[in-house]
Amino acid sequence: MTSRNLTKGKSHANTEKLITESDLIARILSGTEKMHSRILIGPGDDSAIFENKKTAISTDLTIENVHFCRNWVNLDEVGYRAVMVAVSDLAAMASNPFGVLISLALPEENAVRITEELGDGIRRALRKIGATLIGGDLSRSPGPIIIDVVVLGEINDLITRRGIRPGDDIWVTGVLGGSSAAVKTWLAGGVPENGLRETFAKPPFRVREAQWLVKNAGIRTMIDLSDGLLRDLSHLAQASKVGIVLESDVIPLHPDLDVDDALSLGISGGEDYELCLVSKKGALDPFLEKFRDEFDISMTKVGYVEKGSEVRVVGEYSTSLMQQNVSGFDHFSPWRV
Amino acid sequence: MTSRNLTKGKSHANTEKLITESDLIARILSGTEKMHSRILIGPGDDSAIFENKKTAISTDLTIENVHFCRNWVNLDEVGYRAVMVAVSDLAAMASNPFGVLISLALPEENAVRITEELGDGIRRALRKIGATLIGGDLSRSPGPIIIDVVVLGEINDLITRRGIRPGDDIWVTGVLGGSSAAVKTWLAGGVPENGLRETFAKPPFRVREAQWLVKNAGIRTMIDLSDGLLRDLSHLAQASKVGIVLESDVIPLHPDLDVDDALSLGISGGEDYELCLVSKKGALDPFLEKFRDEFDISMTKVGYVEKGSEVRVVGEYSTSLMQQNVSGFDHFSPWRV
Repeated sequence: MTSRNLTKGKSHANTEKLITESDLIARILSGTEKMHSRILIGPGDDSAIFENKKTAISTDLTIENVHFCRNWVNLDEVGYRAVMVAVSDLAAMASNPFGVLISLALPEENAVRITEELGDGIRRALRKIGATLIGGDLSRSPGPIIIDVVVLGEINDLITRRGIRPGDDIWVTGVLGGSSAAVKTWLAGGVPENGLRETFAKPPFRVREAQWLVKNAGIRTMIDLSDGLLRDLSHLAQASKVGIVLESDVIPLHPDLDVDDALSLGISGGEDYELCLVSKKGALDPFLEKFRDEFDISMTKVGYVEKGSEVRVVGEYSTSLMQQNVSGFDHFSPWRV
Repeated sequence: MTSRNLTKGKSHANTEKLITESDLIARILSGTEKMHSRILIGPGDDSAIFENKKTAISTDLTIENVHFCRNWVNLDEVGYRAVMVAVSDLAAMASNPFGVLISLALPEENAVRITEELGDGIRRALRKIGATLIGGDLSRSPGPIIIDVVVLGEINDLITRRGIRPGDDIWVTGVLGGSSAAVKTWLAGGVPENGLRETFAKPPFRVREAQWLVKNAGIRTMIDLSDGLLRDLSHLAQASKVGIVLESDVIPLHPDLDVDDALSLGISGGEDYELCLVSKKGALDPFLEKFRDEFDISMTKVGYVEKGSEVRVVGEYSTSLMQQNVSGFDHFSPWRV
């Protein structure tokens, strides 16, 4: 660190006068509904306090130039997406979000405008999910916009990644590959089609679907598709010490994908935030029509569980291609398309 | 963002092979005790799940070149400090920590070494506070090391910043100004005395003290001293719509402070992480000796509550100096000494 930066860190009177942590929270809160009944103490004290017997908690970082670029989407969309991506982990637990904490680190330049735009998106997301902002932190950033979102949800049933058995069916909601296709296009200097852009900017909210599947179809194992279908299936396989067969010919692909790389993106692009769930063989089939009627999204059987310890791709995708695609991927690098 | 950075973001095979999110969690977890009994599902699923009726939650960002520099302290100390600073908010609620989530964003260079060193400190802090690491997130950082720590604690009594009345006494634990004196010295290019450096690197853990004070002395109002005594008192005053008189001649100052700026740092330096608490007039005095015997730290009466809406400094500090010092401070700028 240079002394110039240090000096800069010490003197930014304009910013200080324009924005404080309580300002920030007040700005983000304005326009949201009253506090969720589980919240005993909201923002403004040392900690928030909530009342709930069993609670799911998850946290997700969104960092400028790692998870988004400012010339891809506007900051309202960034704020919305940061919350929805974090909530996706609760959806995989069929958990209803009630509280959110948001830590922001912002560059000094345009801090007020950035806060307002992010705040618009965050408020939109809070309304969408029905949760209350109960706390957070605010810091100066030495560079990128940094958003860490913590989500709290109610838990009725323990839905985990575990407990699947050979013979079980593997299902996914919605269509895959759209978000990673948008990122791929941006990284190549292009402008993605609107349908693809939207899947990046507006991750789906699948809590209602997850709870419906648990209640009506007895689903007990789910995961949200954040790392790409192939890698997320390997998480499932590892958790239950089984093998999984993925039938590449039936993967539900986003309709706007280019033919050339559609399957590759659908199978390993990541950041789809759809649900992947496991049912006993044939057990979900009787509920499919009702599910589609209720939610107007597709539900596709993409494979099955077998004895073993690997994810095998059958159909037009070769094993070698699978290995090449899946081996190096990790959260550490969100842009891997 | 330049295309060079984007390219860099796409290819870092060495790092990918060396570290993954599950690796990270495994590395941090290794050596920690078994999971706290409140944790139903720990790391490795989509969310963690815990069981607790009333829960305190707080979150604190630690960002390189904003909250620390690598040539000030080692990364083991950074990891320890990041957790302890977050836990300080729970101490102010007299809340016993049981769970922690840690989001890390790391530059690619030396990511494994950085993770191991931070992990050593994080583990030390977890052992110190008796809490379990139950989740988190891992991301690439485009520059600084970024750590967001979320702490969860049990709540028996609601201890807040509110409910103080004219006539009440204001107390602080320990001594003040040491941490900000260390930062001031570093920012000026010097090397702080070891006693000052330690107050920065090892924020105190005051949960036991807080719980003792609630149980034995009936304390109902506390705040942790993160923003500097003067500013934190103004938070207290605002929360209860009262005035506070601070007696500058009795502020307990760190013994290693330079005479010249000792009072200024003690009164407004910040990052002390001691407790500031409020008792009915005279109500805490009978418990002072027992408190000192039990915890071997000082407890000092530094002022009292009055009608009004401002914090007044009496003694050798003038009102004008107070105004100058307190007006611009905020979390947005941790280095304000």
